[in-house]
Amino acid sequence: MPVKLNKLAQLGEFGLIKHIQSQCKNLSSDVLVGIGDDAAVIVPQKNKTLITSDMMIEGVHFDLSFTTFHQLGYKFIAVNISDIFAMGGTPEHFIVGLGIPPNFKADNIKDLYSGIMKLAKKHKISLIGGDTCTSKNDLILSGTLLGSAKQVVTRSGAKAGDSIYVTAPLGDSAMGFSLLEKRGKKINKFHPSSTASKLMKTHLMPEPAPLQNTSKVTSMIDISDGLLIDVSHICDKSRVGAVIYKESVPLSNELKVMAKKSGMDPLNIALKGGEDYALLFTGPPNMKTSAFKIGEIINKGRYIIDSRGNKTEFKPEGYEHFKKINV
Amino acid sequence: MPVKLNKLAQLGEFGLIKHIQSQCKNLSSDVLVGIGDDAAVIVPQKNKTLITSDMMIEGVHFDLSFTTFHQLGYKFIAVNISDIFAMGGTPEHFIVGLGIPPNFKADNIKDLYSGIMKLAKKHKISLIGGDTCTSKNDLILSGTLLGSAKQVVTRSGAKAGDSIYVTAPLGDSAMGFSLLEKRGKKINKFHPSSTASKLMKTHLMPEPAPLQNTSKVTSMIDISDGLLIDVSHICDKSRVGAVIYKESVPLSNELKVMAKKSGMDPLNIALKGGEDYALLFTGPPNMKTSAFKIGEIINKGRYIIDSRGNKTEFKPEGYEHFKKINV
Repeated sequence: MPVKLNKLAQLGEFGLIKHIQSQCKNLSSDVLVGIGDDAAVIVPQKNKTLITSDMMIEGVHFDLSFTTFHQLGYKFIAVNISDIFAMGGTPEHFIVGLGIPPNFKADNIKDLYSGIMKLAKKHKISLIGGDTCTSKNDLILSGTLLGSAKQVVTRSGAKAGDSIYVTAPLGDSAMGFSLLEKRGKKINKFHPSSTASKLMKTHLMPEPAPLQNTSKVTSMIDISDGLLIDVSHICDKSRVGAVIYKESVPLSNELKVMAKKSGMDPLNIALKGGEDYALLFTGPPNMKTSAFKIGEIINKGRYIIDSRGNKTEFKPEGYEHFKKINV
Repeated sequence: MPVKLNKLAQLGEFGLIKHIQSQCKNLSSDVLVGIGDDAAVIVPQKNKTLITSDMMIEGVHFDLSFTTFHQLGYKFIAVNISDIFAMGGTPEHFIVGLGIPPNFKADNIKDLYSGIMKLAKKHKISLIGGDTCTSKNDLILSGTLLGSAKQVVTRSGAKAGDSIYVTAPLGDSAMGFSLLEKRGKKINKFHPSSTASKLMKTHLMPEPAPLQNTSKVTSMIDISDGLLIDVSHICDKSRVGAVIYKESVPLSNELKVMAKKSGMDPLNIALKGGEDYALLFTGPPNMKTSAFKIGEIINKGRYIIDSRGNKTEFKPEGYEHFKKINV
């Protein structure tokens, strides 16, 4: 099929589905029916089934002036993978819903799928179905990811006395977003030694990673809305309070350098920026982990405390979809 | 929480999620974690798991000038249920993705959920999760429905000699759509004895119904794109041909009356209209079923034949998302 540079209007929905099918042939053995029937069919495993769903809308969650379609597809599946990791699970089956403006080119969707498939292959995820339709104005991505877990970790098991950990430095993604906005154009190849490049890549192509051993973890969440909001989610669900040690929040050198250049406070970006897709979890203070200890769970109240003992209350501030972005 | 008439911008994403959660408390016992964590968790059954996904975009799939939010929610879950029935399955768990324009009222979303929950309750479906975010212009609905089946029926088992059946008269939905377009306003209460009202209700609030006994069924699909397209899907997947008996395609009296009034051919509407959400299936000619026998599977070719033996080839014409509507 001569899909190259075809307008989608010529390709038609069924032509596009056939093209997508041809890209998605590596299904795991538990998939009985993949793309192309009324529903996909899988043989359930003995473990618990996890299901997460994320929608990304052009002009709200991404800006096509500074992301390529490949990067967008990569991030789209990454944010879903991150949710499965946040439950202590393994991602397995992905369902893609696309709303495509009629003047898009078939190559755009091909690139989008190449990004999705890149990370899908890395994590051995099968693309098993979806729905493709036209949209009026904006590109719309809606993903549902199924996974499984022997032992599920929710947001609700944190207890006073637990320590709070994060798996990676925070704020790089938000700083990268700020740099991309200023720059206003796409990056096709990231310069490996550039400070700005590293931050922008973290925003455009996040790399979710699972926590290897969750046996002592009492609660977990992925940091998508921002540290302060996501700690607050744990507090709400576990009915506890939290103290964050100000100087312990891990900041990358890249963030420090670029925030200084822009006259911004790197800690503020790390606390409120969001889209980190690192894991935040709680567990015993003496846990053997390579994660950063950034605070502790208390009975009541939410505070940031510095090394001199200055304590300030915090609110769940950060990015919230129907409100303003705070960074 | 005083959600009534609140603008969503004041309610915020998390406030809205709490409101939605309060509406979705009747979970079946296999749901370990519902809405409000990073992912939902279910205990898998022994049967096969079915997954289907559908996206509905304002201005493409629905028009808010002639559907209420309650009707829209009802139809949204109905089209997903229809896909699970088309595989011979039972719908069980629904995940809702919403992209909501910022100036919408909380009551709109409340009404949307009342429509979703009405049909969910009827079919004992648990609402287990989703993603709610803002959209720039249009309301976007993305649903993923999980179900299960002991015996899955796909599109690919039809054999020459099988008869073709449909479970309900066709074309009512497309005729109803045409009437709604002319009328251009909402119907809050359907007049039970009005011919037009019955057709419009079929379009706005379709009632998917399962096929009770699928043991002899060789292939099945739900009629969403239109009879000719959906028969063609069966032919493509099963590598067979089909003959449709022109006079056997079931037409309601309401369709005949209103098509005549509008100077339209009711059969053409039934063949190409789509959105019927009836089931089309194949099986032995002597099958015991209350469904309408409308044709037979042959080795090759696709024809409509009338009672005098006039045979014309048909193409998969009807509604296709990136092309024009043919009715």
